[in-house]
Amino acid sequence: MSGTVISYDVGMARWEPNARGRLERAALELFLERGFEQTTVAEIARRAGLTERTFFRHFADKREVLFPGGGALQELLVQAVAAAPDSTTPIDAVAAALQAAAPWFQERGDYPRQRQAVIASNPELQERELIKLAALAAAIAGALRQRGVPEPAASLAAEAGIAVFKIAFDRWVSSTGQPDLTHLIQDSLDELKAVTAGN
Amino acid sequence: MSGTVISYDVGMARWEPNARGRLERAALELFLERGFEQTTVAEIARRAGLTERTFFRHFADKREVLFPGGGALQELLVQAVAAAPDSTTPIDAVAAALQAAAPWFQERGDYPRQRQAVIASNPELQERELIKLAALAAAIAGALRQRGVPEPAASLAAEAGIAVFKIAFDRWVSSTGQPDLTHLIQDSLDELKAVTAGN
Repeated sequence: MSGTVISYDVGMARWEPNARGRLERAALELFLERGFEQTTVAEIARRAGLTERTFFRHFADKREVLFPGGGALQELLVQAVAAAPDSTTPIDAVAAALQAAAPWFQERGDYPRQRQAVIASNPELQERELIKLAALAAAIAGALRQRGVPEPAASLAAEAGIAVFKIAFDRWVSSTGQPDLTHLIQDSLDELKAVTAGN
Repeated sequence: MSGTVISYDVGMARWEPNARGRLERAALELFLERGFEQTTVAEIARRAGLTERTFFRHFADKREVLFPGGGALQELLVQAVAAAPDSTTPIDAVAAALQAAAPWFQERGDYPRQRQAVIASNPELQERELIKLAALAAAIAGALRQRGVPEPAASLAAEAGIAVFKIAFDRWVSSTGQPDLTHLIQDSLDELKAVTAGN
């Protein structure tokens, strides 16, 4: 039986419905229970009822399991920047894209808050989070250049947009109420505009 | 003789003048010659004429040797934010602090450009660079709060300032001429102000 399972595992990913999501949830449970360092990939796979081999087919390393969605978020942001009306300024196009992504987080229940608690506990995870945000900023800057925004304006708008998002997201995950992430992004953008206007 | 050196090494750091600087230069040489992954800490120490033990007294791991100065840059930025006139807006106080730090980079000759080439070649080094920048942003935000700037304005001004710096620094290291980093920071700040004003 075990041999049969392994054979499916190598050749027939369709026998593992939502393996990726199961691994993500199992990993978060274990990280919250035992801590990130104390959890092995083998334990994550076991908790998810899958094999280590399946884990590594979906994630390059243990850290990656905390960064769900593959490139889906980036794709969503790039398309939303591209879809903004021509008259929209670069920073507003970026903010609109980030707001369009808000449901992507808000539909996940407790997951984003629990995930953030794990990331906050581990410098290596913080590093990975930062490089993911830098990759999003680079992708957004590329989408702005496609709209004809020159450099360095494109990169500055993208980086400033990511700063706006980080601060809104921190407020959202650390809030005890259920504030709307879309509104927090707008508030954060308004604050940035006030700060850079030098009022 | 080797025993004597080891004995000095453990107890008498004063027998290793500028061990930190020697290790930084040796590491950069080796990273440029062989690549970051292909270089060991033992090789860096040997090139510097020091021991591995001395390396690890100065740096927590191989990546850290590319982040010189310990907390000196952060201290310089925090003090410069604190020293800005009361009438200075938060974003201008941050920009002035970053400009005050420009000579810290410009006095190092080819080091910053060579170092950036190594970092660009390795995702783990990019992650470390990003968490260092995030730590600088957090320290700057703290210095702004000390000036009475409330949150989230303090964090937004600090993050926006770091974005300004990143883009100015990228332009500086990738430039073939010898542009003045202080001017590039001012240009980048002016661009950010224009971008967020939604012109």
